[in-house]
Amino acid sequence: MEQRVFSLLVDNTFGVLSRVAGLFSRRGYSIDSLTVGETTNPKYSRMTVVASGDELILDQIMKQLEKLVDVIDIKELEPNKSVRRELILVKVRTTKESRQAIISVADLFRAKIIDVAMNSLVIELTGEQSKIDAFIELLEGYEILELARTGITGLSRGDQDVRFF
Amino acid sequence: MEQRVFSLLVDNTFGVLSRVAGLFSRRGYSIDSLTVGETTNPKYSRMTVVASGDELILDQIMKQLEKLVDVIDIKELEPNKSVRRELILVKVRTTKESRQAIISVADLFRAKIIDVAMNSLVIELTGEQSKIDAFIELLEGYEILELARTGITGLSRGDQDVRFF
Repeated sequence: MEQRVFSLLVDNTFGVLSRVAGLFSRRGYSIDSLTVGETTNPKYSRMTVVASGDELILDQIMKQLEKLVDVIDIKELEPNKSVRRELILVKVRTTKESRQAIISVADLFRAKIIDVAMNSLVIELTGEQSKIDAFIELLEGYEILELARTGITGLSRGDQDVRFF
Repeated sequence: MEQRVFSLLVDNTFGVLSRVAGLFSRRGYSIDSLTVGETTNPKYSRMTVVASGDELILDQIMKQLEKLVDVIDIKELEPNKSVRRELILVKVRTTKESRQAIISVADLFRAKIIDVAMNSLVIELTGEQSKIDAFIELLEGYEILELARTGITGLSRGDQDVRFF
């Protein structure tokens, strides 16, 4: 079992997302996270897929992804050769007593408080997965009401293997 | 034509992503962005889907999403009642002459430089969509080599309609 991150440049057609997701689900593979957004060229979207599983099967899935007509380029984002980031929003229940302690945890991680209500705070944090996980773990001492995370997006380091923007 | 943001709490099953994406594509609707990530409960994932189109059809799609067995909760994130954020990574080509100007643009937006190579920089920025768009527009004066964006994730403000974390 290992976790791998694939970065796909795809045609911006309406079936592409379900075709890519379908390739994983038909093999009984769950996707740990998936992000998809526009590039500077409206014809293309960039998709980042994180999946865990048997190395051989993930290799096969990668080859099948390459064969999809909508997939223009696919590369693996290896830990040392890429930057990988995730954004999370966490809504935490606060009381008069706990509010300051929660804000201190946020400050420690250089997270931002983006909504304050009488009984809750929403905190925004961006970082590598290990930082995000450590932050959530610390907050679990309080009451997490809602959590939204984008999943990982990433780019290769340097400018060696740039094929499209 | 309007853009709407849906936040879905779904069972963490391997077919759910293609079923949700399929509901849009079968009606010829493209998804502007989609993010999916785990919640603090490994049984559930939170999915944020942004779609543009005819209001009536989007209402119908929302009702069909509600009926999917994997969908536990769905709500619309309205602009004034929610916080919505996106994370982007941009790789920009640099020369000795342009590097400092590009760093100044990044500073202006409080973006972070997360990779520096001889001929390129990778910049990380988090914010609302209008901020992200303005940043990309400014960078288009330089050469954008690659762009990865997570798509929007969001949470409702306050703690009135919290159903699950």
